[in-house]
Amino acid sequence: METMPVNEGMDSETFDQFLDQLHRYVRERLIPAEPEVIAEDRVPDDILTEMKEMGLFGLTVPEEFGGAGLNTTQYAKVVQAMAYAAPAFRSIFSINVGMFNSAIKNGGTEAQKAEWWPRVAEGSIACFGLTEPGSGSDSAAMQTSARPDADGNGWILNGTKRYITNAPHADVALIMARTEKDAQPKNAHVSAFIVPMDTAGVSVGSPDKKMGQAGSHIADVMLDDVHVPGDALLGGETGQGFRFAMMSLDNGRISVGAASAGYARRALDSATKYASERQAFGEPIANFQLIQQMLAESWTEIYAAEAMMADVTARVDRGENTVKHAAAFKVFASEMCGRVVDRVVQIYGGAGYLAEYDAERFFRDARIYRIYEGTTQILQLQIAKHMLRDFAAGL
Amino acid sequence: METMPVNEGMDSETFDQFLDQLHRYVRERLIPAEPEVIAEDRVPDDILTEMKEMGLFGLTVPEEFGGAGLNTTQYAKVVQAMAYAAPAFRSIFSINVGMFNSAIKNGGTEAQKAEWWPRVAEGSIACFGLTEPGSGSDSAAMQTSARPDADGNGWILNGTKRYITNAPHADVALIMARTEKDAQPKNAHVSAFIVPMDTAGVSVGSPDKKMGQAGSHIADVMLDDVHVPGDALLGGETGQGFRFAMMSLDNGRISVGAASAGYARRALDSATKYASERQAFGEPIANFQLIQQMLAESWTEIYAAEAMMADVTARVDRGENTVKHAAAFKVFASEMCGRVVDRVVQIYGGAGYLAEYDAERFFRDARIYRIYEGTTQILQLQIAKHMLRDFAAGL
Amino acid sequence: METMPVNEGMDSETFDQFLDQLHRYVRERLIPAEPEVIAEDRVPDDILTEMKEMGLFGLTVPEEFGGAGLNTTQYAKVVQAMAYAAPAFRSIFSINVGMFNSAIKNGGTEAQKAEWWPRVAEGSIACFGLTEPGSGSDSAAMQTSARPDADGNGWILNGTKRYITNAPHADVALIMARTEKDAQPKNAHVSAFIVPMDTAGVSVGSPDKKMGQAGSHIADVMLDDVHVPGDALLGGETGQGFRFAMMSLDNGRISVGAASAGYARRALDSATKYASERQAFGEPIANFQLIQQMLAESWTEIYAAEAMMADVTARVDRGENTVKHAAAFKVFASEMCGRVVDRVVQIYGGAGYLAEYDAERFFRDARIYRIYEGTTQILQLQIAKHMLRDFAAGL
Amino acid sequence: METMPVNEGMDSETFDQFLDQLHRYVRERLIPAEPEVIAEDRVPDDILTEMKEMGLFGLTVPEEFGGAGLNTTQYAKVVQAMAYAAPAFRSIFSINVGMFNSAIKNGGTEAQKAEWWPRVAEGSIACFGLTEPGSGSDSAAMQTSARPDADGNGWILNGTKRYITNAPHADVALIMARTEKDAQPKNAHVSAFIVPMDTAGVSVGSPDKKMGQAGSHIADVMLDDVHVPGDALLGGETGQGFRFAMMSLDNGRISVGAASAGYARRALDSATKYASERQAFGEPIANFQLIQQMLAESWTEIYAAEAMMADVTARVDRGENTVKHAAAFKVFASEMCGRVVDRVVQIYGGAGYLAEYDAERFFRDARIYRIYEGTTQILQLQIAKHMLRDFAAGL
Repeated sequence: METMPVNEGMDSETFDQFLDQLHRYVRERLIPAEPEVIAEDRVPDDILTEMKEMGLFGLTVPEEFGGAGLNTTQYAKVVQAMAYAAPAFRSIFSINVGMFNSAIKNGGTEAQKAEWWPRVAEGSIACFGLTEPGSGSDSAAMQTSARPDADGNGWILNGTKRYITNAPHADVALIMARTEKDAQPKNAHVSAFIVPMDTAGVSVGSPDKKMGQAGSHIADVMLDDVHVPGDALLGGETGQGFRFAMMSLDNGRISVGAASAGYARRALDSATKYASERQAFGEPIANFQLIQQMLAESWTEIYAAEAMMADVTARVDRGENTVKHAAAFKVFASEMCGRVVDRVVQIYGGAGYLAEYDAERFFRDARIYRIYEGTTQILQLQIAKHMLRDFAAGL
Repeated sequence: METMPVNEGMDSETFDQFLDQLHRYVRERLIPAEPEVIAEDRVPDDILTEMKEMGLFGLTVPEEFGGAGLNTTQYAKVVQAMAYAAPAFRSIFSINVGMFNSAIKNGGTEAQKAEWWPRVAEGSIACFGLTEPGSGSDSAAMQTSARPDADGNGWILNGTKRYITNAPHADVALIMARTEKDAQPKNAHVSAFIVPMDTAGVSVGSPDKKMGQAGSHIADVMLDDVHVPGDALLGGETGQGFRFAMMSLDNGRISVGAASAGYARRALDSATKYASERQAFGEPIANFQLIQQMLAESWTEIYAAEAMMADVTARVDRGENTVKHAAAFKVFASEMCGRVVDRVVQIYGGAGYLAEYDAERFFRDARIYRIYEGTTQILQLQIAKHMLRDFAAGL
Repeated sequence: METMPVNEGMDSETFDQFLDQLHRYVRERLIPAEPEVIAEDRVPDDILTEMKEMGLFGLTVPEEFGGAGLNTTQYAKVVQAMAYAAPAFRSIFSINVGMFNSAIKNGGTEAQKAEWWPRVAEGSIACFGLTEPGSGSDSAAMQTSARPDADGNGWILNGTKRYITNAPHADVALIMARTEKDAQPKNAHVSAFIVPMDTAGVSVGSPDKKMGQAGSHIADVMLDDVHVPGDALLGGETGQGFRFAMMSLDNGRISVGAASAGYARRALDSATKYASERQAFGEPIANFQLIQQMLAESWTEIYAAEAMMADVTARVDRGENTVKHAAAFKVFASEMCGRVVDRVVQIYGGAGYLAEYDAERFFRDARIYRIYEGTTQILQLQIAKHMLRDFAAGL
Repeated sequence: METMPVNEGMDSETFDQFLDQLHRYVRERLIPAEPEVIAEDRVPDDILTEMKEMGLFGLTVPEEFGGAGLNTTQYAKVVQAMAYAAPAFRSIFSINVGMFNSAIKNGGTEAQKAEWWPRVAEGSIACFGLTEPGSGSDSAAMQTSARPDADGNGWILNGTKRYITNAPHADVALIMARTEKDAQPKNAHVSAFIVPMDTAGVSVGSPDKKMGQAGSHIADVMLDDVHVPGDALLGGETGQGFRFAMMSLDNGRISVGAASAGYARRALDSATKYASERQAFGEPIANFQLIQQMLAESWTEIYAAEAMMADVTARVDRGENTVKHAAAFKVFASEMCGRVVDRVVQIYGGAGYLAEYDAERFFRDARIYRIYEGTTQILQLQIAKHMLRDFAAGL
């Protein structure tokens, strides 16, 4: 087996300094801004500017294209650090890093890299258009189409994409569209297109009202006879779109896993503080075994997720196939986060149901992690499929 | 052991007709009104009037006092039926039935019954003041005090009660207050007082913003030198308040259990419909085993909770001690409801996170059931305490 | 819908006396005999004789045929009571009552009833031959065949049945065999035959070594050109076998559920005693909240299973379709029992792993309940199938 | 904070070769010997000899003392590899490596190292005497005593140790005994003694009959006026015994965690094979989603445990305090293993209950991992205690 060179990423001393700074930034700048994010349902402009200046939108873009050149191990740590604060802060740059840049890297031509990497590194916001009203993980049902335009070079796109994170803010979208009428083996009927959001015919629906994740937005993206030039086709070749998307999904899953780990830690720290301060029967409730068990179970599971993150990201950086590992990390970390925030509400007791305290929004915010980038159930079936394939192959 | 006569309640044919009508009312009147309840964060006035006319506020008040005279078996079925709709509909009459009337019944003097039962049966709304900022299940820490007034007959109440359901709507409160400075064995330092909410010195805080349960409100009740006459003392005797409260708590727990069972059934029906209609990979998602398992687990657990309800309410009506059974039913049903609504969100997938669909509010609404009227953890410790006491007594 | 008359069973006063006696018998006679059952891997002969005299083998056989005439509510209580002792005591009569008599009742001709009911009521032991090496719940794969004999009246049976409870002790078997070469809709290729075990060509394999359930035996039953007369065909008609078997399975599932409930109660009582006596850190471990929680969770779940049992058996006695309810009860009770015995081992700590204490055999014995008479997974799919069918039918 | 030098262990190339060999040895030699281990309830002598020659008894003994000089990262991998076979193979050398050598390393004098390390490295078997009939994690209740002998140099030991792994095979024991009558802060009443098992007055009880773990033995160790010389006192100082023991417990917990991870992988591989081969409804049961989910959940959790192992062992080798991490790894891995073997039984279905297949012994064997070296509950309380201490210290 030929091995790829390990992706060393940013030099480790520089990265450690950056991460230290980021932890401080999260605590001193982002967390105090959470009430505003919630009240306004948006990331404040000045913070957005700071985040762009810190390079968060181009974390994995190579340095020569204006990015920070992080490898996956490093970028996951950044996501985890940012996810200690309200999810909106991570969400606004997550598609850039987890999906768009990853697709450009895996599938883009040199020209596409040269054009788009510097733009996203500077803070252009990307969105990723795969899901549709009638299709999620099921590409055969995809309705959005791209047909060659009259001069045979460009493309005309039509269709609707649903639940598109950052759509209301995005400067550019990666749109999956079928370039063949009939479903093909290996999803070869799907191609990927880079579509600036200000292209004529592109419109964005109202943001969906959600259970949580204040300040982060999803919306429909409608494509109505959208004309894009020939070089909008990712990789310059049709039939590769789903493959590129899937490669990006590993990355997206690691990002959700890292976010889950970071946010679970936040929730647990909050509960530890509350349990240490809240009195009942004349002593802190942290003295009661049933509270202690909830704390310890949470600590244990967060530790497990963090250890998985270190492993799966190192595998990515060594160039290994990580489809099982990334899915397993995403499933574990998101389910774990769900259990942790649930326990945290329970530790808060009555206060856990009130908006005055943090626990209830942890609970609402975290629920999406078990759903998007592949529900737990869909991913479990994928893991099993690969296990059985490996077994049949004698691995 | 002397046995009490079985409480036969309303005659069963009349009750069955009433229940049938109620099921229709829930489906045809209440469920269509849910969007309004959510948008306005209140039960519409016309519905409130209808509910009063249907006798829902006096379900367990004896017929001779203007009530419906239901026994516990019947009243739990009414709660369960109402809980198929948005929680606010149950919540607005639940304290009357589950707590206030129960306390009057268990502890009230004949005069108190004669005065208050007709009023609540006609729709006066009650609230129940036990919890305080610094004390939940822990009566020793209770701060609210009642001291004899100058002429030695009435009482002066001071203190603050927290998380009081229906406080903003209530006409009357049952307030637990300490009548002894020092904590006494068997909580004999606590007495219960019937306090009309328009008494001078009573004020109500702003409703707390909550995770869910739109249209239902909790708030602080402040008592500032509130003067009540001597006959406001429940049962006419000090030192009995906590005992009466505890007896009502059994009732309150059965009510929360019934609400959990009813709402879980609603959520499951919603998911069954969604799974039957939503297509993926060319077929309804209900065809997939992982969806089927979530449906079946939910059906199984709801069935268990319903069977427990039948058992525990029959025990109450036979006059048995049901402290373990009521706590166990509340714990099981509320935890079950939490699991069911969680699965329902997962069955809905991405749609499960959106306010456009019902799943997300089921998820938020249900979370309180595991917390109030005794958290799962507190009740588990109570169950164990009684188990160990029974074991030691050779039972 | 026409309703069947309610099965009143034995008169309730007589039954209550019988049940009281049985509880005493279990505690005073069976439990002290457990070490012998384990050491000898068999139910002692004298106890077997007593059990026959008590009528346990014909509990559900009508009185006019020599049985006790219990309805399902009563018989489940008997099973539950017996299951408080080692599983072998229930197992030896369970097939008679749960499966064989039920099949005779549902499908037998008058002549078959007249012949077999008195015999099983007196203590003839029955086994039930459905499962095969290559087929469990999957009747299409059934290999055992019955072909008409030369004179066109009797039948020749060939095949092997696997995991047949009580095979080494059985006097008679109910054998499912295909009477059509090709699988038919509604399993009409399967018929049921009453086969005395001493018929030429019937042989029984060595009992399988099992994880637990000492004293209870399962083995293969081999049929090698076994000739049975025409009146061995249950109901006198081909194509009905699977239907009769399925109707008996409801009964069998209720029996396993009742056994699970009874045995879980035994395990919990054992743990409550142990926790009250075992000291650590200078006090009984029952004082620790984490132990208390395990006790309370177990009590709660057992209570739920018992309440389900009351409900599902009442439905059977009212003649309702209970396929969902029986499956749900079996799934819930068996899974519950698995969790209870697991907690009981944990409460015992190190002692929980030692044969010197009871906990480890509770743990091993209970594991089968989640598997036989339909695994949890198979039953969940059945429940879901019926849910979806009911939904589609607008029920 | 002063940092210790990282323990580099054996050079990595040599170790990788050793581990490869070991994996082959496990598959080609140990697994085929499992039926013999089970039938004879012992590790065959020739295999024991081979294991000694391979250096397994002195894995962590420094090379200059005749050991393999592994660091914790490496030794955990060896344990995990060995644990893919029946537990007895790991168990027989686990106390040497996990507890005894660790205690010598942490607390032994140079003379003790010089005497005992070469002996255990050559295959002398050690046992570890902490638990007593009346005390587990509770050192205050320890009864075993050591009092100075007449000449004031040596010691006289009396007492009984319970559940001592390898006691019937051991050449040497590390015995915890109280050297002060009254309990002291920080357990300073406990000291540790190195006691050759052939010392006069030492006797070993009959091995306890256990739920599983065939071939591995635990028994009581009785000390009846056992005289040991002064240099038997570990570290040459009284009052340090519990501290040394606790330091070894981290190691012991990592060993149990590694064993759980290895054995869970074995069970999952077995189930994957079974599910791929076993047919139902005309196809392998691995095709069914409910089976796939059980496989995927197991794979995911094993992966998490393996990742934790890598993290915690690296921390040990860097000299970090790992009390929380080691406990969390042990809790997670052992609970995970319990869930995996439970699912494996369920995947096997009826076959999962039969001794003819492997699943049932996996189930029985694994149950101890959640109990010994600290039950899950005890360790959760320890984790919480450290969390709260860290929180209070502002960490």
